[in-house]
Amino acid sequence: MWAEPGSAKWVAHCRRGACNNKHASVTEGKVESICHKTQRMGRLLRRAAEFFLKGTLFFPCEPDRGLVRVQELTPEKAGQLIWVRARIHTSRAKGKQCFLVLRQQQFNVQALVAVGERASKQMVKFAANINKESIVDVEAVVKKVQQKIESCSQQDVELHIERIFVISQAEPRLPLQLEDCVRPEGEGDEDGRATVNQDTRLDNRVIDLRTTTSQAIFRLQSGVCQLFRDTLTDKGFVEIQTPKIISAASEGGANVFTVSYFKTSAYLAQSPQLYKQMCICADFDKVFCVGPVFRAEDSNTHRHLTEFVGLDIELAFNYHYHEVIESITDTMVQIFKGLRDKFQTEIQTVGKQYPSEPFKFLEPTLRLEYSEGVAMLREAGVEMGDEEDLSTPNEKLLGRLVKEKYDTDFYVLDKYPLAVRPFYTMPDPNDKKYSNSYDMFMRGEEILSGAQRIHDAQLLTERAMHHNIDLEKIKSYIDSFRYGAPPHGGGGIGLERVCMLYLGLHNVRQTSMFPRDPKRLTP
Amino acid sequence: MWAEPGSAKWVAHCRRGACNNKHASVTEGKVESICHKTQRMGRLLRRAAEFFLKGTLFFPCEPDRGLVRVQELTPEKAGQLIWVRARIHTSRAKGKQCFLVLRQQQFNVQALVAVGERASKQMVKFAANINKESIVDVEAVVKKVQQKIESCSQQDVELHIERIFVISQAEPRLPLQLEDCVRPEGEGDEDGRATVNQDTRLDNRVIDLRTTTSQAIFRLQSGVCQLFRDTLTDKGFVEIQTPKIISAASEGGANVFTVSYFKTSAYLAQSPQLYKQMCICADFDKVFCVGPVFRAEDSNTHRHLTEFVGLDIELAFNYHYHEVIESITDTMVQIFKGLRDKFQTEIQTVGKQYPSEPFKFLEPTLRLEYSEGVAMLREAGVEMGDEEDLSTPNEKLLGRLVKEKYDTDFYVLDKYPLAVRPFYTMPDPNDKKYSNSYDMFMRGEEILSGAQRIHDAQLLTERAMHHNIDLEKIKSYIDSFRYGAPPHGGGGIGLERVCMLYLGLHNVRQTSMFPRDPKRLTP
Repeated sequence: MWAEPGSAKWVAHCRRGACNNKHASVTEGKVESICHKTQRMGRLLRRAAEFFLKGTLFFPCEPDRGLVRVQELTPEKAGQLIWVRARIHTSRAKGKQCFLVLRQQQFNVQALVAVGERASKQMVKFAANINKESIVDVEAVVKKVQQKIESCSQQDVELHIERIFVISQAEPRLPLQLEDCVRPEGEGDEDGRATVNQDTRLDNRVIDLRTTTSQAIFRLQSGVCQLFRDTLTDKGFVEIQTPKIISAASEGGANVFTVSYFKTSAYLAQSPQLYKQMCICADFDKVFCVGPVFRAEDSNTHRHLTEFVGLDIELAFNYHYHEVIESITDTMVQIFKGLRDKFQTEIQTVGKQYPSEPFKFLEPTLRLEYSEGVAMLREAGVEMGDEEDLSTPNEKLLGRLVKEKYDTDFYVLDKYPLAVRPFYTMPDPNDKKYSNSYDMFMRGEEILSGAQRIHDAQLLTERAMHHNIDLEKIKSYIDSFRYGAPPHGGGGIGLERVCMLYLGLHNVRQTSMFPRDPKRLTP
Repeated sequence: MWAEPGSAKWVAHCRRGACNNKHASVTEGKVESICHKTQRMGRLLRRAAEFFLKGTLFFPCEPDRGLVRVQELTPEKAGQLIWVRARIHTSRAKGKQCFLVLRQQQFNVQALVAVGERASKQMVKFAANINKESIVDVEAVVKKVQQKIESCSQQDVELHIERIFVISQAEPRLPLQLEDCVRPEGEGDEDGRATVNQDTRLDNRVIDLRTTTSQAIFRLQSGVCQLFRDTLTDKGFVEIQTPKIISAASEGGANVFTVSYFKTSAYLAQSPQLYKQMCICADFDKVFCVGPVFRAEDSNTHRHLTEFVGLDIELAFNYHYHEVIESITDTMVQIFKGLRDKFQTEIQTVGKQYPSEPFKFLEPTLRLEYSEGVAMLREAGVEMGDEEDLSTPNEKLLGRLVKEKYDTDFYVLDKYPLAVRPFYTMPDPNDKKYSNSYDMFMRGEEILSGAQRIHDAQLLTERAMHHNIDLEKIKSYIDSFRYGAPPHGGGGIGLERVCMLYLGLHNVRQTSMFPRDPKRLTP
């Protein structure tokens, strides 16, 4: 029994083998099902059918069905007649029965429509013809199964369907198949089965994001943000909102996107740093912000995006900038612990497609000086100068050496050469070759860059001149420190990198919902 | 006793009446004070002085001072010798004594340097000469006072200073005075005392943000974000991060900022709506995001910004879009309750400068239909058509009428005329003149606009054509709904407006740390 099967917007099958007009029940308050055999559709019936065509659900008052979540379908529910709303994940008709897998986010359950007392032959045929990825409401009896259903998250039960409604019909041809998207790396190649390349996935992100892997990645990412903020809020930090449209490029103008701003031009902020520092000068003491950061770098690498999410921290310290490092590393440790303790399901889910070693960290966090790092690299055969910056391969090598020696995937490299850091970095008072600055690494890749900032207008002016920066362009930045500025420091963490490296993934586009790079602006 | 008084970077006064070389104590590990009378400065002393000149604090290991917070200075601490780091809020020398008010964020305390056993005449003179807004460390004895100090937050104690160090010296001339910035509206005019206009404040935001009023506003704003997210996380929502650089202007191209994107052009997102909806189509079920929203509107009003923070919600619903309204109104109610219960100090502080009636709300939230609102306005003498949009004055008037009749500052206006809403708004299935859309109001001003969205590609196409929108430009938007889309709805809340209206302020620039409007891009 269904209404306008062609439109397939809202279709009901009756539980009897043969269709009967009496089953068409449409009342002012409630549309339950409409019979396709009803020749004399009443006013209400016609009106309802019209809404279905328009895709409008018509429930002036709510039906009293309680929808059960797929993850709640456990043996305790055996024998119960329940309603579920889910997607058709797979569908396989076999003689007088049709096996469906119904999916809801990371969870799925097997369901069966079989010709018999509960369903007609037409109903089985109808169910078998619903396109994959369509959303359906089913009324079904929960049954315990003898043998575990290994392919589903709900392994101990299946659903015996009595009624099935299509809430939203998917088009018959999908641009990519979900099962191809979750196939573990390499497996497709071996078996000759399809895998989906990254661009196809990203072009069809709305489907790619439905995979168990994507669902797990972005739920974990949501968790990283929450852990970051909760930890800092507990430490007395204040959340701030900083502008993204700015009038001048504070770091000298390279790699910055230009915006048309009414009759003038503006830029997109490469970091909230100036504003974080102004908040410190404005007595907020400890601040954080979570927001987009824009880099107009033409870098097509596995770890660069032109727009990413920065988890930014800035704080005044009392006596030593290591107070800042401790505050940041402790925040990272709280994030790692929170993920380990609360997101084990997600970590395991991602691991099925992308296996990796569990992420290791120490308490307290390992802090090495830059010169120690250089010494370790030299011992491993690398030739480099004391004041030379780390290349990406050397960063990775050092990550491996540190892992071997200290058994940690997270560490801080402190006291970078002054020459390789931005002008606002505080020089090391003990050795002018170095600076009070640091990077933090996960699995050998940089996730944070930070420093004690110069809080003295005069010294800042000197350092800017040393870097040949136009003082006029950074005047308001320098002026911020003229009316009393506490010593302070901070850093910015790349959210997508943290998620990528924590999960042992290999491309930052996997941890950005809608990544932006020099070649990608859509979807 | 001080080092290089001219540089004033780090200055120590000894506790004795007369200066004595022995008090100059600089050791490798710790710089405590340097005597200006020491003629033979040692190597260390010279080095220390050099760091002071550079503004670098030099503490290779931390001194064992525990700094006490100003708000912790209560009678229980009477008699204790403590260290405090704070700003010089005011300074008044009177004969052999100098009264200081030391300020730390919203808190302040009176402090006294007096010639006697503990301080020399020079020390009093030195203290009196420290510029306002400079940051100092003081060592002082906490004393109970006989008479409450009405002008300070810590009314029952004062500090008797024994040592004072300047951590960061402010320039002698401040561009604006803090006391002028916190003067209640109107008071300045009556007494002929100075008030500070908004542009001067915003031009010098780093100082303006130090006022008790600003500190309270932005701490409350941080609280709004936290309450918003915590409420939604508890309801099972997932936080998402949506891109701000987009390839096409989804709502037709008006009021959108253009960005140069390598060799092409892009736009700044006017709302995260498309991406929220894609997440719903990608099975995230209930999502929220907090982030910047860009509007290239040349509106110079009290409530428009070109960049503001959107608190965005989108969720799939089961049977009726009122489930969405309930989810949003409940979130707002949780925010109002959280502010009332946890931010009373901040509310009171802002109220001292900007008095207003406490914010009133009902549970459950009042929901009126648009037609009811129009009827109320007509009864009050307004002439308007059924399908005419509300003008700003009529919105405000309706807010007053609703307050009179229902005693609430927060309500929902539901079922807007279809004609005044965007093309993606779901029409009302019962009456094609109206739509399943709503606005929410605080003190008569709109803070949220939302709707059930059309989740059917065919109906969406029809509606876009009706609005003369170029289908090619919104192809990817429409395609998002082709592979099964649950019925859903949502809305976007303006953070700055919520804060402004909750606190009864009159300009949205007061609740934006660094506001952007057609005429302001700095700081």
